[in-house]
Amino acid sequence: MPLQNPRVAIVGATGAVGTELIACLQERKFPLSSLRLFASERSAGRTLAFRDQGLPVEVLTEDSFAGIDLALFSAGSGTSRRFAPAAVRHGAIVVDNSSAFRMDDAVPLVVPEVNAAALAAHNGIVAVPNCVAIIAAVPLWPLQQAFGITRLIAATYQAASGAGAAAMAELRASTGAYLAGRPFSPTVLRHPYAFNLFSHDTPVDPETGANDEETKVGRELRKIMRTPELPIGVTCVRVPVLRAHCIALTLELPHPVAPDAVRAILAAAPGIRIVDDAEQNHFPMPNEASGQGDILVGRIRRDSSDPSGRTIAMFVAGDQLLKGAALNAVQIAERLLL
Amino acid sequence: MPLQNPRVAIVGATGAVGTELIACLQERKFPLSSLRLFASERSAGRTLAFRDQGLPVEVLTEDSFAGIDLALFSAGSGTSRRFAPAAVRHGAIVVDNSSAFRMDDAVPLVVPEVNAAALAAHNGIVAVPNCVAIIAAVPLWPLQQAFGITRLIAATYQAASGAGAAAMAELRASTGAYLAGRPFSPTVLRHPYAFNLFSHDTPVDPETGANDEETKVGRELRKIMRTPELPIGVTCVRVPVLRAHCIALTLELPHPVAPDAVRAILAAAPGIRIVDDAEQNHFPMPNEASGQGDILVGRIRRDSSDPSGRTIAMFVAGDQLLKGAALNAVQIAERLLL
Repeated sequence: MPLQNPRVAIVGATGAVGTELIACLQERKFPLSSLRLFASERSAGRTLAFRDQGLPVEVLTEDSFAGIDLALFSAGSGTSRRFAPAAVRHGAIVVDNSSAFRMDDAVPLVVPEVNAAALAAHNGIVAVPNCVAIIAAVPLWPLQQAFGITRLIAATYQAASGAGAAAMAELRASTGAYLAGRPFSPTVLRHPYAFNLFSHDTPVDPETGANDEETKVGRELRKIMRTPELPIGVTCVRVPVLRAHCIALTLELPHPVAPDAVRAILAAAPGIRIVDDAEQNHFPMPNEASGQGDILVGRIRRDSSDPSGRTIAMFVAGDQLLKGAALNAVQIAERLLL
Repeated sequence: MPLQNPRVAIVGATGAVGTELIACLQERKFPLSSLRLFASERSAGRTLAFRDQGLPVEVLTEDSFAGIDLALFSAGSGTSRRFAPAAVRHGAIVVDNSSAFRMDDAVPLVVPEVNAAALAAHNGIVAVPNCVAIIAAVPLWPLQQAFGITRLIAATYQAASGAGAAAMAELRASTGAYLAGRPFSPTVLRHPYAFNLFSHDTPVDPETGANDEETKVGRELRKIMRTPELPIGVTCVRVPVLRAHCIALTLELPHPVAPDAVRAILAAAPGIRIVDDAEQNHFPMPNEASGQGDILVGRIRRDSSDPSGRTIAMFVAGDQLLKGAALNAVQIAERLLL
């Protein structure tokens, strides 16, 4: 049964994604009948603005979901594992930004441009994919539909926001200290971040050598696109950028395809803006992706490592907090209204 | 005839690489009998320190090379094209950091760890490769020797220093302005650089879609490693880092090779330091590569996009100004003494 003017809760309302969830609901005039904001005890008591109102931030408990129709979770997988079942028991539909349920066969993992139809089968929980998986899936899917992708190699340039508001603050603070010649000890991230980059700071599987982020991106892309056999190799790297991810994508197709044909397909696909002006050397950049809902796609060309012409390279940028998280969650919620 | 206690000139002595050339000659106790420093009129008249002396920076003319045995050029390809022949006419050997002569069949293109033997055939000019090509060649060459590489895909994370001292200053200044909320208009680079990244700002070939940097990396790697048929696909990206480049390398071998075997070969190869501690999540980073002569190599693993096991992924970092330019030039000069 579609949701109508739902009573909405945001769990993790004071975080980097939570803040954007509130903004997305407001900007997109989401037809909610009420909004409640939840966070941990540390943040409770604050007041956040929504539609010229000040809404109190409340402490989350298992009883918080009484009278809630739609709960948008963005407070880490521990909170989702603990509280999402309670929300479902109270009759709410959960749209979860964490990785807690993404690979659960009973949970749709949804990028609306790709697999909105999967929403029909939810059992109370819908998962929002990993940010890199979303930002890659939007341009990959039209090519998967048109040609079928046979292999994918990706190298990421990931922003601080993926590690939360505290990591964004640490990037600013450590960079300011560096420029002032002051020492700085990181407390949020494992490595110095000022004018530095590092392999994604999630645990590395000693068997495969992949870090958790890389493993997530591969398996989530396969689930979203329903390509269980697609071989995917990813290198995930954090760069000193605040809130938009970039990805260098190299994808193999079953037969040679002209870059112009790829560009035309992507230009006609939803959620994509082509930024591919060779003459002006203007291609996707984080500063232009920030604050935008679309994924920027450019540098579309034949990959010169494959003389057969079957491999296409491109470079994409997307706002990690918007399409990579909050916007995708709200777009899912909008589909649940239909 | 080997050089003995040569009289050395540095052309472009005040630039980012020139400054490092002076430092490398001093730190490595290069056995020169005299050093003269040249730059454009704008920089002439300054005094730079070398071995507790103050050396004047002189204006470069075609007569500057009288009495010079070894000229280290780092002032752009225009200056190299104009003045390197004059230096050779005066009997000097030129070691050129620019791209002017790199693809000239009569000019050796040398990374000493890879192809020092090519120095025997020089006709007065030896070329230092593009910084990305050097930093990639050092770890690729031992694997090329051991197995033969059949395909290479690379995505770069390039520092400001590749665009010179002014670009490094612009990265600092624009970032400081961003943090202070002040507007900033770039004058050195084409795009905003504070907490931003962009596709390498060299012209894009409308035929191939590759930018000049990508084209250089491919053709120079093929020349250095004497692998004229090796298919190489590169995506070159500038990131907000000051002076060390990183590269995500994906390389295909003729048969499956265990990552441990790759690691052992690289650990025994010259110019490489393995930084591959999965437990501590410690891998190559620009801040640790900066000021180091070695290329840091880590994230050595099977690339999961190739189920055959023939493809290896790794992540490398190298100081763009040292091994990527000045140090490699001085190492070439040291070989010319032998």
